[in-house]
Parts: sequence; structure tokens; C-alpha cells
Amino acid sequence: MLRIVTLTTDFGTGSVYVAQLKAAILRASMPPTLVDIAHDLPAHDIRTASWIVGQACLAFPAGSLHIVVVDPGVGTARRIVWARLGEQEFLCPDNGVLSWALARASLAEARALEVPASAAATFHGRDVLAPAAVRLLDGEPPDALGPALASLVRLPWPEPRESAAGIEGEVIHVDAFGNLVTNLPATLWPRVAAAGGLHLGGHEITTLVRTYGDAATGTAVALVGSQGLIEAAVVEGRADLRLTAAVGTPVSIR
Amino acid sequence: MLRIVTLTTDFGTGSVYVAQLKAAILRASMPPTLVDIAHDLPAHDIRTASWIVGQACLAFPAGSLHIVVVDPGVGTARRIVWARLGEQEFLCPDNGVLSWALARASLAEARALEVPASAAATFHGRDVLAPAAVRLLDGEPPDALGPALASLVRLPWPEPRESAAGIEGEVIHVDAFGNLVTNLPATLWPRVAAAGGLHLGGHEITTLVRTYGDAATGTAVALVGSQGLIEAAVVEGRADLRLTAAVGTPVSIR
Amino acid sequence: MLRIVTLTTDFGTGSVYVAQLKAAILRASMPPTLVDIAHDLPAHDIRTASWIVGQACLAFPAGSLHIVVVDPGVGTARRIVWARLGEQEFLCPDNGVLSWALARASLAEARALEVPASAAATFHGRDVLAPAAVRLLDGEPPDALGPALASLVRLPWPEPRESAAGIEGEVIHVDAFGNLVTNLPATLWPRVAAAGGLHLGGHEITTLVRTYGDAATGTAVALVGSQGLIEAAVVEGRADLRLTAAVGTPVSIR
Repeated sequence: MLRIVTLTTDFGTGSVYVAQLKAAILRASMPPTLVDIAHDLPAHDIRTASWIVGQACLAFPAGSLHIVVVDPGVGTARRIVWARLGEQEFLCPDNGVLSWALARASLAEARALEVPASAAATFHGRDVLAPAAVRLLDGEPPDALGPALASLVRLPWPEPRESAAGIEGEVIHVDAFGNLVTNLPATLWPRVAAAGGLHLGGHEITTLVRTYGDAATGTAVALVGSQGLIEAAVVEGRADLRLTAAVGTPVSIR
Repeated sequence: MLRIVTLTTDFGTGSVYVAQLKAAILRASMPPTLVDIAHDLPAHDIRTASWIVGQACLAFPAGSLHIVVVDPGVGTARRIVWARLGEQEFLCPDNGVLSWALARASLAEARALEVPASAAATFHGRDVLAPAAVRLLDGEPPDALGPALASLVRLPWPEPRESAAGIEGEVIHVDAFGNLVTNLPATLWPRVAAAGGLHLGGHEITTLVRTYGDAATGTAVALVGSQGLIEAAVVEGRADLRLTAAVGTPVSIR
Repeated sequence: MLRIVTLTTDFGTGSVYVAQLKAAILRASMPPTLVDIAHDLPAHDIRTASWIVGQACLAFPAGSLHIVVVDPGVGTARRIVWARLGEQEFLCPDNGVLSWALARASLAEARALEVPASAAATFHGRDVLAPAAVRLLDGEPPDALGPALASLVRLPWPEPRESAAGIEGEVIHVDAFGNLVTNLPATLWPRVAAAGGLHLGGHEITTLVRTYGDAATGTAVALVGSQGLIEAAVVEGRADLRLTAAVGTPVSIR
């Protein structure tokens, strides 16, 4: 079986940079199965990338290699690393882009990559990460890549807070349908049911359902979503527009 | 040769859902060649998906497996199925998404899939279709997937109508160039030629050509398109904007 | 190892045309590794396609086959060709789409493809180029594809000009970050340094850096970019918006 290599960047779809990154990886003598996760992430947005990476990459078969290039500090003093979390391997800048993955799988090993003098200062994806991927694909052990690191940069992550008034959280992702994914885990769903609903921005959502189609078109609903998190949605509509919500909009169970 | 698995969804490009769907399929012991057909289909738009699926999937080599997830009714009582049409296999909700394919290839066999209790109610693509794909890729026969079905849901499809005034049809697809694909089959082209043109919305198109470059830039033309259907186009321009047309705009040969 | 076939088109992401092109290529008895370079190129824009092709395709492993379909003259008298430039092979219309690649790698061989009578006049990608790719993938020699050609169409390319006032060039590409790639090669960087900056549109950029992160957020900077060309950028911002620049905006070193 071919090894799987996934790619997550903010380079833009149809970007010459994505093509050059793939071209460099395909120089391996045992070329991998390439899987594009996303190339249209918001530019320089490490937090959004971190959520996508944590949700998507950890789902792949054990031993997959994930290359993540959202790297506003490319070429500066920030480290660039190989890391193993659980059964997944990553090649990425050490800028917090693994924060959400690190909250869900423990760091088993990490290595600081050397930056060759010939690397373009603005494109370490092509000139540092892809060559490291080729070395791994061709069978070199990770410890040949550079010195061991004990930890990686982690961005503070918005965690739900319990207060006298109830539980406070926020929207952490808006999907392509406009569904609002919150940071409230599915384990809090009985609390939502007991409270009779969810507060989101200035709205109260009292229609609690198992799936989107369980209410009439246009109804604002709350449910346990497929990512293991509580979501707000509008049946066959866009909750982000209807509820004027975005990443960061407060959510609470009172 | 690796088996081909295509993916057609409304999840959005760069969606975590597409990545999780691929991750689940790649758990097969004989991983396939994955081909993305479209992930940016209009949300919940079964008719548009149906046209794309009919035109694109039937063109693949015999034995390809097509996963289609445009599924506003996910988790409700709508069935979720495996089907063989001609030499192609499909895994999809039974919501009409195969309507156009069923008009072009006959249904050879269909099976209703069981939904495991552990499946997320909102993501049957990942939790029902992908595991069924893995079973097929690993060599299980389709009849192990569930009970046989005699027929599938078919949406009414806009067919050309002959009237005293002539032949009436409509635009059924607008491509990325703004070309207007109608539901008038290529076999009606001699009627267009005899009539001296095509009526589309409030416009009469009298420049009949073999290909886009056969008239001056900016000219509105009619032609037999590459999909076996009559099209209207504007040379190196956008017919949808120039003729203020969209899916559903009436077309006629008088 | 599977042979690599890349695809560069203006068909649009999620287009039925891309799917049909892939379906036709996958009919090869030795199916290749397919790599999408871009499908969202501006419609009919041969110059933009030419730049992307030159930068991206030449980076692939030797022997890769690149299919390029930006083809406003499809079905007209323009030739459709196979060509080898350096160690890369191309299948494309002979309309200038290889101009930038031809400036960077020499033409080793070219063949004019025959257009079968059954080919749709509007879709030579599917009906001429894909079948030619299948023949090559299945082991036929290129000279079986058609008569040899001595040269290919080359569009005039904007080259930097030396004048009494200095060196004059222009922006030739705007990437997804809004960075402005100019036609001034990296070898001119010492001249930029000696002049103390770069003129771009009505702006003077005097902050010269090695990488984007070497100046404060929001600063307009000039640097040697990863494509071997001098770039203007705004740190963690969009230079195209901030400097009101686009492809064609004049650049100079005075």
C-alpha cells in the first residue's frame, strides 16, 4: 500500500505553490497517495488551520503523514518540525498549527528540521518540508531529520467555562452550509436538553433535534453534530446569516 | 489496477467533511484511486447534483464506484443505497440524486444499506457510505450490504415538449464559462438549422456554429455542445450574463 | 512507479468537463497518478495559464505528462499538439500556452495531433488530448501521434527593459495572498539594494527584506520571492489592495 500524505495550506486553490509542493513530494522513489485537505484556508489564520487539522488529520489511517503550511513566519526564527501525535505524523511550522490536534492526541515525538542554505526564505513548504517528506517516504528514520524537541507551540484554545449563570462557550467553526460548530462537547447535550435550549448571540434556540431534517425548512435548531460537538443550524438554510453569527460568537447553556 | 472511487458532494472545497470521508475510504485494505468530481455543488441542490452525476460518472471506466453526498435528509427516513447502473456503481442517499443517470443507464441492481447505531445522524457519508465502500473495495459482494430494492426515487426531469408553436425546452446547466446547456438533444439540431435559430429567454440567436471560435468575439451563438445537448454561448464571453439566463430559462425552436 | 499526469484548465472547479477529462485518461491500461494543478484559471486567459504552466510543470519529476486546456480556439484551425520541453511532456493546444515554459526550457520535439472526426468540436481536451495521453501511457511512442513540428506558437512576453532612467518591468502574477510577482529576475536584486528600493505603480517600496516576517505587520516590502523573481508584498496583508496593483502594473528600479 502507498503511504498517505495529506496537504493543508492557505496557498489558494490552483496555486503554483501547491503544484510545486506536490512536484517536490513526488520526487520520492516511493511516491505516496496525495490527499488535498484544504488549500483555501484564510491566509495566515493559524487557529482555523489548527481546527481543520485536528478534526481531519487524526481521522486518517495510522502512519499517514500530514503536511501543513499556514506559515506567516516563514523564514524567520520560528522552528519548522516533524512530529508524531498518536499514530499520525506531521510536517509543519511550529507556530501553533497543531494546537487542536495536541488537545486530542498526545505528542509522542518531535524533531526540529534543519533549513538548508539553499531554501527560499519564503517557501519552506517546498524547500524544507517536502524534502523531509521525501526522506521519510524513502525510508529514513525521523531521528535523522534533526534534534529532538520536548514540546511544541500551543495557542490558547477557547474552552467552555462553567459559571453561576451556566456554561459559556463560543462558535469555533462555520462550515460551508453555514452550520455553527461550537466548542461545547456532545457530553453537555443533556444539559442543553434540561435547559430547554441553547443561547447563541442574541438568539435562543429551543428546537432540539437529532438531525437537520427533523424540523421544518427554515427552523433554527440545535443538535449534536458529526464532529462530537454541539451545533446550531437552520434546516436547509444558513445559520450564520440567519443568526448573524461567526467564529467567536458566544454560546451558553443557562 | 486500483479501483476508481469518485466523490461528489456539496460539502465545500477544503471542508473537514471531505477529508473525513476520504480518510474513512482509505481505511480499505485495497485503497482506491480517489477522484474528486465536485465538492462545491450548491448546498442541498439535488437536481444540480443529479445532472453532474449523470454526465460525469457514466463516463468512467466500467466498475468505478461513485459516492454522491448531497443529502438534505441525512438521518431521516430516506433510504441510503448502493446501486448499479449499467457498468457503474453508486453509493448515495435515495433522494433523486441519480435521476439523470437513471434516464441514461438502466438500473441493474440496488441495495438498501443498514445504518449502524453508531453512525452520526448528520454524516452518513462518513459513517454509512464510506464503510460500505470499504467493504466493497475489500471484496465483499454487494448483496451483503442489505436487502434488494426494485426501484429508486426519480425526480421529474424537464423534458422538451413539442407544441403547435414548435419545440419548447429550457436551460438545465450553466457551466463555468457561462455557457448555457439546454435540455434539447443534439438530434434536434437540424430543426434549429431549419428554423434559422434558437429562442432563449427574450433573445433570438441566429448565429449557428460548429464551435465557439467560429464567430467573432462577443457574438451570441448556438451549437451542439460536448454533452450531446444544444447550447447557447457568447464567443469568449459569458452567455448567462449577456442573455440574462439561468437554469430554467425557456428555450424554443419555432 | 506510476507515471504522473498533471491537469491545468479553465474549466472551473467541480466542472463536469474536468471529471470527463479524468475519466477518459483513466481508461489507460496503466492509469497514472493524476495531479490537479489548477482548474480555476481565468477563462480563455492564455497568458495566465502560460505563467502557471511554466512555473509549475517544469518542477515535476522527469517524464511527467502535462495536459493543459485553456483553449478559446477549440475546434478551429489552431493546431493541437504533443511537445517535449527539457524532460517534461505536454499535451495542449498550440496557442501560446507554453510560451513561458519555452522561455525556460528548450523544445526537444513536437507533434501535431490528428483530430478524429468523432471529436466534439468544443472539447478537444476529452476527445483528442486524453486519447493521446492514453496512447502514451500505454506505451506508444510520441512519433505515432502525428507529424513533427519545428516550432510552437509563442506569445510576446513582457521582458524587463533597461533605459536611461533605470530598469522597467511589470507585475506578471498576483498570488492568493495578494503578493505581487514581477518580471524582474532575482539577479537584479543588488540593483534594487543599491537604489534603496523599488517603484511600483505610484508607490516607492524602501523596506527590503529576506522574508515576509522580517518587517512589522502591514509594512510594504520588496524581496526575492520563491519563484526566482522580485516580489512586492505587505506583511500579513494584501499588497494588491494596499498598492492598488494588478498584472501589468509597472515596476522600476531607478
